[in-house]
Amino acid sequence: MFKGIFPPIATPFVNNEVAGDKLAENLSRWNQTGLSGYVALGSNGESVYLTRTEKLKLIEAARKHIPADKTLIVGSGSDSIRETVSLTNEAADLGANAALILTPSFYKGQMKHEAFLTYFKTVADQVRIPILIYQVPKFTGVSIEAETVAMLAEHPNIIGLKSSSEDLAYLGEVIRQTPADFLTFVGTGSVLYAGLCLGAAGGILALANVAPGECVRIQELFEQGNHREARELQLRLLPVNKAITAQYGVPGLKAAMDLVGYFGGEPRAPLKYPGEKELENLKSLLRSAGLP
Amino acid sequence: MFKGIFPPIATPFVNNEVAGDKLAENLSRWNQTGLSGYVALGSNGESVYLTRTEKLKLIEAARKHIPADKTLIVGSGSDSIRETVSLTNEAADLGANAALILTPSFYKGQMKHEAFLTYFKTVADQVRIPILIYQVPKFTGVSIEAETVAMLAEHPNIIGLKSSSEDLAYLGEVIRQTPADFLTFVGTGSVLYAGLCLGAAGGILALANVAPGECVRIQELFEQGNHREARELQLRLLPVNKAITAQYGVPGLKAAMDLVGYFGGEPRAPLKYPGEKELENLKSLLRSAGLP
Amino acid sequence: MFKGIFPPIATPFVNNEVAGDKLAENLSRWNQTGLSGYVALGSNGESVYLTRTEKLKLIEAARKHIPADKTLIVGSGSDSIRETVSLTNEAADLGANAALILTPSFYKGQMKHEAFLTYFKTVADQVRIPILIYQVPKFTGVSIEAETVAMLAEHPNIIGLKSSSEDLAYLGEVIRQTPADFLTFVGTGSVLYAGLCLGAAGGILALANVAPGECVRIQELFEQGNHREARELQLRLLPVNKAITAQYGVPGLKAAMDLVGYFGGEPRAPLKYPGEKELENLKSLLRSAGLP
Amino acid sequence: MFKGIFPPIATPFVNNEVAGDKLAENLSRWNQTGLSGYVALGSNGESVYLTRTEKLKLIEAARKHIPADKTLIVGSGSDSIRETVSLTNEAADLGANAALILTPSFYKGQMKHEAFLTYFKTVADQVRIPILIYQVPKFTGVSIEAETVAMLAEHPNIIGLKSSSEDLAYLGEVIRQTPADFLTFVGTGSVLYAGLCLGAAGGILALANVAPGECVRIQELFEQGNHREARELQLRLLPVNKAITAQYGVPGLKAAMDLVGYFGGEPRAPLKYPGEKELENLKSLLRSAGLP
Repeated sequence: MFKGIFPPIATPFVNNEVAGDKLAENLSRWNQTGLSGYVALGSNGESVYLTRTEKLKLIEAARKHIPADKTLIVGSGSDSIRETVSLTNEAADLGANAALILTPSFYKGQMKHEAFLTYFKTVADQVRIPILIYQVPKFTGVSIEAETVAMLAEHPNIIGLKSSSEDLAYLGEVIRQTPADFLTFVGTGSVLYAGLCLGAAGGILALANVAPGECVRIQELFEQGNHREARELQLRLLPVNKAITAQYGVPGLKAAMDLVGYFGGEPRAPLKYPGEKELENLKSLLRSAGLP
Repeated sequence: MFKGIFPPIATPFVNNEVAGDKLAENLSRWNQTGLSGYVALGSNGESVYLTRTEKLKLIEAARKHIPADKTLIVGSGSDSIRETVSLTNEAADLGANAALILTPSFYKGQMKHEAFLTYFKTVADQVRIPILIYQVPKFTGVSIEAETVAMLAEHPNIIGLKSSSEDLAYLGEVIRQTPADFLTFVGTGSVLYAGLCLGAAGGILALANVAPGECVRIQELFEQGNHREARELQLRLLPVNKAITAQYGVPGLKAAMDLVGYFGGEPRAPLKYPGEKELENLKSLLRSAGLP
Repeated sequence: MFKGIFPPIATPFVNNEVAGDKLAENLSRWNQTGLSGYVALGSNGESVYLTRTEKLKLIEAARKHIPADKTLIVGSGSDSIRETVSLTNEAADLGANAALILTPSFYKGQMKHEAFLTYFKTVADQVRIPILIYQVPKFTGVSIEAETVAMLAEHPNIIGLKSSSEDLAYLGEVIRQTPADFLTFVGTGSVLYAGLCLGAAGGILALANVAPGECVRIQELFEQGNHREARELQLRLLPVNKAITAQYGVPGLKAAMDLVGYFGGEPRAPLKYPGEKELENLKSLLRSAGLP
Repeated sequence: MFKGIFPPIATPFVNNEVAGDKLAENLSRWNQTGLSGYVALGSNGESVYLTRTEKLKLIEAARKHIPADKTLIVGSGSDSIRETVSLTNEAADLGANAALILTPSFYKGQMKHEAFLTYFKTVADQVRIPILIYQVPKFTGVSIEAETVAMLAEHPNIIGLKSSSEDLAYLGEVIRQTPADFLTFVGTGSVLYAGLCLGAAGGILALANVAPGECVRIQELFEQGNHREARELQLRLLPVNKAITAQYGVPGLKAAMDLVGYFGGEPRAPLKYPGEKELENLKSLLRSAGLP
């Protein structure tokens, strides 16, 4: 249920409002692929731009269009333990199967081993669905050490980690120090294949919004022992992955979705849809990668 | 009304709940000093750990105990434009005189010139009180360029900037590029005197929670042309300032408040009150600085 | 000749002078393993602490004890093009087979695409042995983009790159953009296996000073398609690799060499041999990894 | 002898060789200003691009054209203690009055308190002229803590520090913790006035190559208690200072020298003289600042 490829789904807006119909359309297409499930309200879902009410509606709408055999993970973490617990439990009530919880990060100087233990244990004790730790230094400016993750992995309600760093020594350390059933997810499409080689359970990948079949295929090839083809497909996807993450961010992701037939649409301000030049570049990158 | 020294006030908790009576006690003591006013819900106010309801109650409680001739600034910014506008206007209704608005920062790669222009102009257009831009790279991981600030300074509802960096070349550039009536505030006690020399309007300083009189005194000495004494007092306060910011963070600030006779108290988890050793060090630093 | 595992060899000192006999002893042991060759004067060789005369003597001494069928690569790069060319050609005269050339880095703000093209092309034109580009952001504070590497890969005298970053998206991009015969080396033992999966030619690894057989074994297992064992051995070596690099640096590397039977010895000041506590920790980490 | 303004002089090249006559011309003009002396072989002198022989010739040539009442400081530090001692003593023989010694920085992970104590005490014990510690995080990637500087200040042969950071809290801490006769120099023209306010002895400033009179004037105004004019002049110089440091680096410095009547000339490769567009911008910035 928690293995495989999950896209942290983009949130569709029409006239700056969450567009449930567009979400349903996207999900109906994604449901036909081998994706294991979805992450709603992740970093790529512009979660920080949604009100609490919008967040709950989005979860509800998503669950409605996700079959029971596909997993719904919800990004419900914030610096506040109270709010994290409360939002996670409401998400659970709406059918979320697990929560992806950001490392707290505002007081960077204090966010070390002990604070992370306190935060995640307290949250895990109080929520009714299992949680995955979300390490994403590029957005938070902090990291949680493998040693800390290993201690948290002993909590029955902490079932895994998503690492959105491209540092595979970190991923390896987490895998080495945690039990075999602890789920370590690669968090960026550029290192999916390498992460699987090291023992990752799968990937939670922006790239899987745009190229779900290809991401799933990398994992299949890996599991079949077809390393040569897995590696080739991985290398082929690198430029697109970079374009929709580091290079153009969420606006690039949404534009790429539009270009391959999903609904991407405008991001919320202050983000801004890519201009002509960026779109041309995106098109060319998608074509080179054989997408769609 | 907007010149001088403002503490970004610590939020007092008793049994993990906001303690209005303790806030009132602190304010009644601070009101007897030369502070120009207060910032509620700033970085030092553990704002990220408060629910929306708690934030509004805190503003209401603070305003009740702040005389009309002292300014109340509220930290009401977040990545979401909608939420920032809505919280700022509710704060205005509760008597806030201005809002201190964090630079949006989640999507660091996109948070550049244009996004900052869009964000701050949109917010400034829609809120009913003037706003100050809050630049604090150590917490947000982004900075807003002086050139961008200068363009925003043309908006009638954007009246100033708080810079919490210790980089005085940045502060100087902002002052050089903005009109004489644009308010540039020093955001950390270590460079108050140097910032005033360059033309700052005052300081919004964690240190002013603990040593309000001394911070005010530095500005008085500066304005009297008594540079020698201003400099001496500034240097004397450096170790305490460091202890309550970079070294021990908000927990250190609260412990120092307790040690000099204010109510500091426990921070919210995952922050943690300093241990014995840290407290001994804080005591010794306060004593060396002649505090209280 | 240029595939496989190469240790960037530690420089042995006795009474603070380069100890040729100890070098000979180490080499005679290493020569019995499956190492493909050696890097002299790399980052782990305390090259920055050697005079020019000492550097040349070390190359001469090393070559004398390295069989003709093993490759000698020399770290002869510095910010100065003149000095880099001159030292590289003298190294060639002493029998070096190739040179590992650091990205220039002093003027970080200017060290971008064009400056790297100019630097490496000029050096490559003027030296009599092939060169490998050495990317090591943790020491230099700069990186050379994959696009730049790809352009340099067209030069007949630029045959490869060592990447000492743990960012495998970078390694993948270099491999994707360069011809199949361009040699991409993993530069740190933590990501050897993952790097091989992506297509690396081998590793230039501090770890190979201490655990040459194990590093060679990872590559053998990989080439045999025994991914399971390669991965297990890789994970087992992680803590030792960290100890002799990020955690204790060159002093840790030398102490670990002493503990497994090579001559490590004192580093030059201001580096300092590890104390009792660090040695105990190193011993325990080596034991856990099954070393020696 | 060690108070006031010192330019870290640019090294003139003609046909890529050090041009002693151009150096003499520049010095003869600078000698007519109120500069207290010069730093040869500093970061702005492209020292990393000079051979050892060129360095010694440059010192000799510079001394010949510097009057006895002006101080010659030489940048003779490198990671190697041996080379630093040897070059410094040769510089002393050629008439250098003091040496500016970079913090060692290659092994960043180990370059902390103890290593800095060892390095600077060892060097100071063995050299025949007094030394100044050179802190420049933007080039070295390391900083030396104020506490460490304070301990080193007790050494009779360590007389001061140049801080090239714009962090004035750091400068203040160094001044607070060191004796009144320890010389703390501001290392960048953007914070000269603010640094003097905090108690700096003067400035070692790239900007003083281009605007020696203006830099000297800021210090005079400060010493006369004319803070208003000192501040105005400081703010006026900010854009030029940025252009010749962070924005265009040494190439920008040399071009600005050419534009105001000194000999700047080509930097050594891989640095490159600014193009047309950059030159136009530099001209306009110089004009706005009233230079020459």
